[in-house]
Amino acid sequence: MRTYLDCYPCFLRQALEAARLAGADENQQHWVLREVLDELHQFALTSTPPEMGYRIHQIVRRELGARDPYQQAKVLSTQQALALYPKLKALVAEADDALETAVRLSIAGNIIDLGVTQEYDLEGTIQRVLAQPFAIDAYAAFWDRLAQAEVVLYLADNAGETVFDRILIETMNKPVIYVVKHGPILNDATRQDALAAGLSGVATIVDNGCDAPGTIIPLCSQEIRYLLAEANFIIAKGQANYESLSETAAPIFFLLQAKCPVIARSLGVPVKSIVLKDGAMK
Amino acid sequence: MRTYLDCYPCFLRQALEAARLAGADENQQHWVLREVLDELHQFALTSTPPEMGYRIHQIVRRELGARDPYQQAKVLSTQQALALYPKLKALVAEADDALETAVRLSIAGNIIDLGVTQEYDLEGTIQRVLAQPFAIDAYAAFWDRLAQAEVVLYLADNAGETVFDRILIETMNKPVIYVVKHGPILNDATRQDALAAGLSGVATIVDNGCDAPGTIIPLCSQEIRYLLAEANFIIAKGQANYESLSETAAPIFFLLQAKCPVIARSLGVPVKSIVLKDGAMK
Repeated sequence: MRTYLDCYPCFLRQALEAARLAGADENQQHWVLREVLDELHQFALTSTPPEMGYRIHQIVRRELGARDPYQQAKVLSTQQALALYPKLKALVAEADDALETAVRLSIAGNIIDLGVTQEYDLEGTIQRVLAQPFAIDAYAAFWDRLAQAEVVLYLADNAGETVFDRILIETMNKPVIYVVKHGPILNDATRQDALAAGLSGVATIVDNGCDAPGTIIPLCSQEIRYLLAEANFIIAKGQANYESLSETAAPIFFLLQAKCPVIARSLGVPVKSIVLKDGAMK
Repeated sequence: MRTYLDCYPCFLRQALEAARLAGADENQQHWVLREVLDELHQFALTSTPPEMGYRIHQIVRRELGARDPYQQAKVLSTQQALALYPKLKALVAEADDALETAVRLSIAGNIIDLGVTQEYDLEGTIQRVLAQPFAIDAYAAFWDRLAQAEVVLYLADNAGETVFDRILIETMNKPVIYVVKHGPILNDATRQDALAAGLSGVATIVDNGCDAPGTIIPLCSQEIRYLLAEANFIIAKGQANYESLSETAAPIFFLLQAKCPVIARSLGVPVKSIVLKDGAMK
């Protein structure tokens, strides 16, 4: 997905939030914002929003040091989600269609997105997403192609959401390669976050070789680029993976909540929609 | 009031909205935003937000021509408010304290602020503001000093709000100099808008010699600077007048709704508060 001018105010908001989370004083925040203004001036609207997001967080790190401002929030999100794990498993066990319920739970977990908002209602979201109709519903194709898939390439999104992914992975009952970020970016899951969520028991965890939001293919490791090129069943979680991969030809199912008005408009759905999109259907 | 970094995303949003209202295509909007990014880079946080707002609207006008994108909205706001005029007069006539009710109505009219939001609920706001406690309540001082005042210098804010100001002016029963903008900026009232609202029958309308938001004293005409220096009772309506005049020594009562979180924080009140602030009380 290309970048829209409506993303510009949001880029500044993100930069300010990240600088503050990193403990910057007002002078440092101002310095970061001025660097972001320069980057934005040069930024091409044909690039995807996560490419700008990546530059923003590089600036924050360069100006403020290598600390990970989201570390504590990620640990807490994972703990909060793990506390719900038995309840989530019970929901799947009692469901008429276990796979659909697990897909919905995985999408519910996508509310844990600190790039969009610092506050979210996890249990309320689970209830909502279990009941809400899909605004884009490729479940039939998902069901059908999953049955034929030998391996699932699963592009993770956020820490905590990882626990909801684990439920889906356990329900799919296929070999899964679970792709996480190489280094910290926003509250995106790294190997450490995936391990804390118990993913190592149910999937092969692979890091994508970079620390950008979403999946910016040219920045990924050779291994990931090979996996993306060869996979015939890919799950991509969350907005940033949609933003960065919506134009690729890879056989991707996008599972996400449309939390941002620009992405919702790009998908042709209302904000707060839940989406299971077959990437082959443009 | 100085500018805060939280204003930066909002400046970009305002620039984009103004460019779109002026009919700009995406290329022109992008051009405007890039100019605003450059301005923001150089902007000093010690300046007030209306100074940046002024630059933004100068850029929009320079890039897109001299049209007034808010002209139609201002005419409609004035018509909408005039339709309520008999009802507003009845509310004042029936009130226990006619002056307080007229002050509240004048503050209710401050919801017509297209720099903050394109949509507002005028009748709902009137009901709310008539009942809501003041978050800052200088009514006793206002009442007392008005009784001693020979002339009221009244700094107007937006078109449509002018009708609510007229109610207050009729209720105060003092000679009033009603100060409007020299040229169009956002939906701020100009002489034409004040005339359409019927102000010429109840006040001397004077334009402030410039087309910036708020009252940026160095940009005002010599006459206005003289009036500001000599007046002993000034009413300043709305957020932009507060932002631009909060540090001056002039004897100003600020009447406004705190619609923006940064201004609310500067005033020490919650967002959506109603404020009658004695400028002498810091």
